[in-house]
This record gives sequence, C-alpha cells and structure tokens, in this order.
Amino acid sequence: MPALVSRRRAVALTSTLSGTLIGALALLVVPPAVAQPLAIEQQGSFFIGGHEVKSDTLSTLSAYAPSGTITVGQMYVHYQIPVGASHTPVTLIHGCCLTGKTWETTPDGRMGWDEYFVRQGFPTYVIDQVARGRSATDPSTFNSVRLGKAAPDQLPPIFSAGHEAAWAIFRFGPEYPKVFDGMQFPLEAQDEFWKQMVSDWNAAFPTLSPTVPALSQLAIKLKGTILISHSQSGIHPFQAAALETQGIAGIVSIEPGGCPAADSDLSPYRQIPILVLFGDYVDQSPRWAPRLRQCREFVEAMKKAGGRTELVVLPETGVKGNSHMLMQDRNSLEIAAWLVGWLNKNVEAKKN
Amino acid sequence: MPALVSRRRAVALTSTLSGTLIGALALLVVPPAVAQPLAIEQQGSFFIGGHEVKSDTLSTLSAYAPSGTITVGQMYVHYQIPVGASHTPVTLIHGCCLTGKTWETTPDGRMGWDEYFVRQGFPTYVIDQVARGRSATDPSTFNSVRLGKAAPDQLPPIFSAGHEAAWAIFRFGPEYPKVFDGMQFPLEAQDEFWKQMVSDWNAAFPTLSPTVPALSQLAIKLKGTILISHSQSGIHPFQAAALETQGIAGIVSIEPGGCPAADSDLSPYRQIPILVLFGDYVDQSPRWAPRLRQCREFVEAMKKAGGRTELVVLPETGVKGNSHMLMQDRNSLEIAAWLVGWLNKNVEAKKN
Repeated sequence: MPALVSRRRAVALTSTLSGTLIGALALLVVPPAVAQPLAIEQQGSFFIGGHEVKSDTLSTLSAYAPSGTITVGQMYVHYQIPVGASHTPVTLIHGCCLTGKTWETTPDGRMGWDEYFVRQGFPTYVIDQVARGRSATDPSTFNSVRLGKAAPDQLPPIFSAGHEAAWAIFRFGPEYPKVFDGMQFPLEAQDEFWKQMVSDWNAAFPTLSPTVPALSQLAIKLKGTILISHSQSGIHPFQAAALETQGIAGIVSIEPGGCPAADSDLSPYRQIPILVLFGDYVDQSPRWAPRLRQCREFVEAMKKAGGRTELVVLPETGVKGNSHMLMQDRNSLEIAAWLVGWLNKNVEAKKN
Repeated sequence: MPALVSRRRAVALTSTLSGTLIGALALLVVPPAVAQPLAIEQQGSFFIGGHEVKSDTLSTLSAYAPSGTITVGQMYVHYQIPVGASHTPVTLIHGCCLTGKTWETTPDGRMGWDEYFVRQGFPTYVIDQVARGRSATDPSTFNSVRLGKAAPDQLPPIFSAGHEAAWAIFRFGPEYPKVFDGMQFPLEAQDEFWKQMVSDWNAAFPTLSPTVPALSQLAIKLKGTILISHSQSGIHPFQAAALETQGIAGIVSIEPGGCPAADSDLSPYRQIPILVLFGDYVDQSPRWAPRLRQCREFVEAMKKAGGRTELVVLPETGVKGNSHMLMQDRNSLEIAAWLVGWLNKNVEAKKN
C-alpha cells in the first residue's frame, strides 16, 4: 500500500493538471467519437437484495389481480469489466432525484464516468438506488387510497425537484436562472439534464435507505469495491461501512448531503481510504456551505483518529467553475483522471 | 432486397436449427464467460421526447419546493454500437411491468439479447418505456391527494403484477405454481425474474402511450431501425408506423398483446418487413389464445394486401417449451440466432 498523498501533494498534483500538464491530459481525455474501441471482457446486470410483500391492492384494473405477492427493495446493478482489468472495481452511486444515468453520457453528449473508468481498467458497477429507475416500487398505497381503504395522508411523500429550485441546489447559479461566473456545467444542454430527473422515494424510507445494506451486500459480493457516491447518497458508503466494513476498499463521497458526525463512532472508517470532494461556489450556497463545514469537521476528526481521510475542494486546488454535477461538467473527464490518480495512490489494487 | 423467406422455408430453417445443426449453433452461442471480448465502437444513453409540466404539488417536503417545472414524457435509450457494425440497428422494447432489463443478463445469469445482437453486428438500442425505469414520472397527483387538494379517485391507476397472477400471464404454467411440461424458462432463478418487475403506469395514459411517438422519433433519428417489441409494447411499432413509417426498417412483434385489426387501414405496414413471433402453450392460455388468433387474422389480411408479414409460432416449427419471456428462456440465444437469420433475409442492410 503506497503512503497516502498529503493534502499538499494532492493540491500540487491538481494544480499541475490544471496547468502545464493540461495538454498531455487532453490527449488521454478523448471524446468517444475518436476514442479507441472499448474492449469489454464481461458486462451485464443483476439485482442485490429484495424481499417479498403481500398486498391486496396491487391493482385497480380488471386485467391485473389486486391480491398477490411482489418483490421490492432490490437494487439494480449494471456492470462492465474491461479486458485486462487491473484495478479494484468502482461502484457509482447517484444522488437525489436521479438514476444511474447520472454517470452515463453527459447532457451535451460526452463520455460519462461509467465508460471512462472502464477505459482506465476499472470494473465499473452503476446502480439505481432502491425504489428508483429500474429498482421496483410498491404501488399498494396508491391503490389503497384510490379505493378508499386508506387515508390520503398515508400516501408516501414522493417528490420531484422542479427546475427552478434544482437550479440553486445543483449550483448552476445563485438562483434560477442566474449563472455563476465561469460555470463549467454545459448549460446549452440544460434540457437534457432535466430529462434525467425522476421522482424520489427516499423520504418514504426509514432513516436508513435500503440502498445502504444493498451497497454493503454488493461490496461483499465483489470482494472489494470503491464506493463513489454523490449528494443524497454521499452518506451511504459511510452508513454501509458502519453496518459492515467488509468489501469496502475505498470511499469517494462527492458533494455529500452530509458526512458522519465528527463526534460519532469513527472506528468503522479508520481503515478505509476516504476522499470527500466538493466543487466550486460552495461558500455562495446557503444549502451547501454548512454541509462542507460539517464534512471539514468530520475529516479533521478522522485525521486526529488516525484515519486515511482527505477533503478536496476543487477551487482550492486551482480547478474552478464546477457545479454540484461535476461528473457532467465540461471538465468532467479531467476530474475523473485526477480521481483515478488519487485512487491509484490511495487504494490498494485488488488481489485476485 | 432479398425475397421474403416463405413460411415453409422459415419452418425448415428452424427445424434444422433445432435438429442436426444444433451442435454447430451451440458453438456460436457461447456464454459470456468464455466468449471473445466485446469490441464496442461507441456506447451511451440519451432521451427522446419529453415536455415541461408546471405543478404546485411537486413535493410535500420542506427541503424541496412544491411549485415548479419538471420534464416528463421522455423515453430513456441506452445503446451500444459494435466495431464493424454491418446491420440495421435494432431497438429492443420491453413489455408490461418490466424495463429495459428484460433484454439484459437473464435471471439465471446468461447473456441477454442486448449483447447478443451487438455481437452479431447490430447497433443495439434498449429503451425504458415512458414513465418506467429511468424515464420520469410526475408525482403531482400523489401530493395533491395527500394534501387534500384532489380526490383520491384522481390517483393514476398504477399497478404491479403479483407473482401468482403473473405466473399464468407469462405462461410458466397454467396456474401458479404449476409448470407446463418441457418449460424452457429458468425457474430455478424465478426470484431474480420477479425482481425485474416494476410498477406500470401505462393505464394512466390515453389510448396511445407516449412511448409510441418517442419510438417514431427514435426511428427517424437513427435513419432506420428494426423495432423489436414484446407483449404490452407488441402493438407499439405498428402504432408508430401508423404515425409515420419513416425510419421503421422492420417490425418484430414478440407475443404482442394485440395486432392491428385485420379490417383496419393496413397501408402503413405494407412496405415494412414484419414478423409476429409466439412461443409455446398459447392454446392452453385463455389470455393468449385469442391474441394469437387475432394476430393470425391480421397476418392473413396483410398477406392478401401484399404485405411482407409473417407469423411464426415456435412449437409449429419444432422449437418447444418457450414461455412468454422467450428472450430469457434456456434457448433464448438459439431463438435470437434464428431471428438474426430472419432479419438478414428480410430486412435490407442499412446503407451508410
């Protein structure tokens, strides 16, 4: 295991990437149209978890029986393993109101992180959180209320983020439709980004989303994976580690909605290489500034406790203009390239 | 354009595949673990369609504003283009209560049709129907009812298919949990299949699902694609052709819930090579037997009208034991290989 890169060295590396080496880096970060063919050893999809639920209100239609058993709570996982895979697998975990699409082709049609990591030799797993995308939901309550068998206030608190509110949440600008100076998000393709957003069931769950134990099971099944989470799911890898550290080879928490409390039990995280990564304009956001402060406290506490935890705020390293959706920003593959470097230095390669 | 294969020749071909050539075919139909690496020229995802909706009930949570604009009605599309693509693209369209997962890894872990078609040289597009999977839904009515702003009977008729009822619908057996003799579906992995099933919003749409115009737009964008539909979506390629024939290079309707009426205007379909494909046990199913009869009437009417339309019922060709989910049955890749042969004979290769 190589020694951890110090904060100063990480800063120096990033500054270099944004400076003189940017030309060389650009050679690596070629768009898909001119990239070499992608050589896939194996690809496919499967589910993790899930349990049976019996219900008498599965349907109000004559063609489908109201009573029966359905399976819910499972997490959809799609994966690609490159020929000559040489790294510990990465698992890409999307945030609020989004699905695994987050990591695929960007709104303006560039290569997503899903393919970039495969091209860098990482077996890459992309999930849809439980009750999102291709991971099932239970319609029973809708039908119970529709039939007068349950009160309207029993409906789950499903929500969608409107464009106007999401604008500030995703830090495209201070408020809709103002744009932060130097914004790297491809706003000319904004409509394509809005199409990625789906209804979110997370508030209908108890405190711990079922995605968390599913991530833990996935990590154990893969015998080691780096959990790369974003925003709403930022806390999930930490919650999974608190359940069981087995299989969690690293945590990259991108713009997390929260970090573990600095005064909580930090022992589950102490042996795991951890990176907390933020983009730009955080201090200008009433929503995000406190979250960054809280994560700084966690990282400081981890360092005092001997943990291998690092916080990187991109503009502090010279990389400017990144929104909350930094995996889709114009410099998304430059950030991915930097992240691959961080992982190579900090996460032990998987032994097979 | 080669001459259409006659019904008799198609039958002979299939019989041969199930007979003496089965050994040779097995060499082609290798499982992913021992297959050659997959060489991908380009892959990614995008959306087709979508429109903005303004709502005052997007959320009942304090963290997300109730009022705003969301984008719904778009159709998620994932694609892979193989190196040296030599065929007209195929578009794989899932059925009721399912998503694009239908075409990926089978419940028992074998290669899905999505990868098989890519390996045979077809650019392959897999969609999630509008309001399913990664294609967004609108939560406004849930929240309107939750807040007492709308009556419970305004809730959309969302349904899930219970295992017990789905058993007969998918023709695993005559009734749950009885199994048809010679069943090809991998019932030992039945739990994995149940995890594929999601809630279905199709009954909430007007007669024409928004998936239909989206398929038409996709066909036009691709400048030619073979629409391969299943079950609930079986009728969609025909409905898309009735809107606009441009870009629809072929239709393969697998176990459709219905075919166009024999006495309807057949002119949109006359220039399109069409295959309607059914599995086994149809005559033993009160749900499916009338649908097959209705499709036979359509196909006969098409033949009289000079259309290039063929109906194949697999057991009539010697291929026995196929369920409604024939793309996941044990002989799924044998059927795919036969289908590739049918497409090669009947659909003109795309000229670029």
